[in-house]
Amino acid sequence: MKDRFLRACRREPVDVTPVWFMRQAGRYMPEYRALREKHSLLDLCKNPELALTVTMQPLRLGVDAAILFADILLPLDPMGASFEFAKGEGPVIHEPIATREQIDKLRVIDPDESLGYVMSAIRLIKREVDVPLIGFAGGPFTLASYLIEGGKSANFAKTKKLMFGAPDAWRALMETLTEVVRLYLRAQVVAGVDAVQLFDSWVGDLAPADYVEYVQPYARRILRDLETTGVPVIHFGTGTATLLEAMRDAGGTVLGVDWCTPIESAWERVGYDRAVQGNMDPCALLTTRPIAVKHAQRVLDAAAGRPGHIFNLGHGILPETPVDHVRAVVDHVHAAGAS
Amino acid sequence: MKDRFLRACRREPVDVTPVWFMRQAGRYMPEYRALREKHSLLDLCKNPELALTVTMQPLRLGVDAAILFADILLPLDPMGASFEFAKGEGPVIHEPIATREQIDKLRVIDPDESLGYVMSAIRLIKREVDVPLIGFAGGPFTLASYLIEGGKSANFAKTKKLMFGAPDAWRALMETLTEVVRLYLRAQVVAGVDAVQLFDSWVGDLAPADYVEYVQPYARRILRDLETTGVPVIHFGTGTATLLEAMRDAGGTVLGVDWCTPIESAWERVGYDRAVQGNMDPCALLTTRPIAVKHAQRVLDAAAGRPGHIFNLGHGILPETPVDHVRAVVDHVHAAGAS
Repeated sequence: MKDRFLRACRREPVDVTPVWFMRQAGRYMPEYRALREKHSLLDLCKNPELALTVTMQPLRLGVDAAILFADILLPLDPMGASFEFAKGEGPVIHEPIATREQIDKLRVIDPDESLGYVMSAIRLIKREVDVPLIGFAGGPFTLASYLIEGGKSANFAKTKKLMFGAPDAWRALMETLTEVVRLYLRAQVVAGVDAVQLFDSWVGDLAPADYVEYVQPYARRILRDLETTGVPVIHFGTGTATLLEAMRDAGGTVLGVDWCTPIESAWERVGYDRAVQGNMDPCALLTTRPIAVKHAQRVLDAAAGRPGHIFNLGHGILPETPVDHVRAVVDHVHAAGAS
Repeated sequence: MKDRFLRACRREPVDVTPVWFMRQAGRYMPEYRALREKHSLLDLCKNPELALTVTMQPLRLGVDAAILFADILLPLDPMGASFEFAKGEGPVIHEPIATREQIDKLRVIDPDESLGYVMSAIRLIKREVDVPLIGFAGGPFTLASYLIEGGKSANFAKTKKLMFGAPDAWRALMETLTEVVRLYLRAQVVAGVDAVQLFDSWVGDLAPADYVEYVQPYARRILRDLETTGVPVIHFGTGTATLLEAMRDAGGTVLGVDWCTPIESAWERVGYDRAVQGNMDPCALLTTRPIAVKHAQRVLDAAAGRPGHIFNLGHGILPETPVDHVRAVVDHVHAAGAS
């Protein structure tokens, strides 16, 4: 297995900076769109052969890691919160969580049973690919926000109303989600993933004091437990400029950084005993190859050749991104040498 | 005129901390919703008598400043970019900007002529209210994002594609918007507003280096020019944790801070030669009066009694906010003494 990505996660010297992209398997690729004409998003997740196919699609671009094709919401359905992906609207939770009774009814699942298709996909992928495979799960705040808002939210008003206004109910919800996420990521490691990423994508909407009070204890429990498995643990969110120290304290051997915090200052703040992942603005990939490459170089310059940098975007690849711009950035990062 | 707000803007001692709220005139108030049953949002903006009525509605809560009832998009229509507020969808620009030709066709308006109804409303309000009146305009990045995206955007992909990918076109657009905003705010000062706020609300989606390259020169031109009028100039954005120093350098005698940056660290970073405005999480108003008051006290504690703090939220009041929670926070801030 090519281990450049894993070596960088462990802050070991690498020949060249490893690169992968959040949402590297997705709508920007014509072969993915072709598959989606025949299969729903959930079909692709739930059929291990199809998940393998999609997971492998971006490997032709030369990325240094594969990420399991799945969705952070998959655990919600067996927990008792059914949902669908509405056309053009993103996820829709059928019965958003509004009461303590609903929270108490959510089940802690056995992921090998309820999400056995994910574990099958992991085993299949591990037989086929020669780069490390990253597993992942949504963070507890982010999953709670979907459960409570019923989908993607602009301001997390219902989530924070519950969090600030009914802290006992909030803690009960976080306890359940924390145990589900912990077991789910552990099961992925047992099934064979080489690293895991916790996507607490929306946690950056919280003030630091609120993150520390309402989220950090749960993120810590998940991350510290996963660290004992020995695989690299990537801790990621967006809009986290004021949370980086608190997220580091929660855990993760690699901190994922969005594009709004320059990676050199993020790294200085979290400390050089962690690796960092990021953090080019995904929108810079929309422009031209030379401009995309210029933005990539800016990130490499900021990381300054220190061991422990994994090149990535600050968030996922946008659907309208030209594939050849992505490839140009991969080639540039590899040609630039170790960052 | 009660001058507590203006004194705090100038960092002069005050008897108690002044308080006002972004979107203090709006859908959370029953009397506003009643008016909106009979009139569209644009009707309320364009009829000075109605704008006066709406501007005055929140004054019954005891706030220390009025803010002109208007919308940041009003200048776009006379510039040549017509729009409407679609039911439940927010603003819709009829022909979003995609080409240099469209940019070159945008007109620099004479605000006294094209937006004379705003100036009439200001003159009317100034005769009726005994608290300072705040005028405002959208910042150039924020206005550009609406023009290019055609409405509110989740990721500003089209805006940044133009900004990064066609910098000459971007600069032409920013030149026009900058001149419009500068003239519009100047006209508001001449008409009688006691302070102005530049809402560059969405600028926090930019990395600091990109803000400095693509936005700061234009924000600076507006803010520095307005500072010469002698009225306090409030510079505000959200998600600006990594931009505060660059926004301070652009200008503004008062920095508006969102809820993600603790106000004590924001103030330390921008320097005590500026006043600061903020920064309670708007969602904390949704809970209960005691919890809302607790969050307000946290902000007061963080501001630590230093002259130059204007209490506000970190962004606008949410429509689902109970009016009596807003009143409880006003009363608490006033009862707490000078912060």
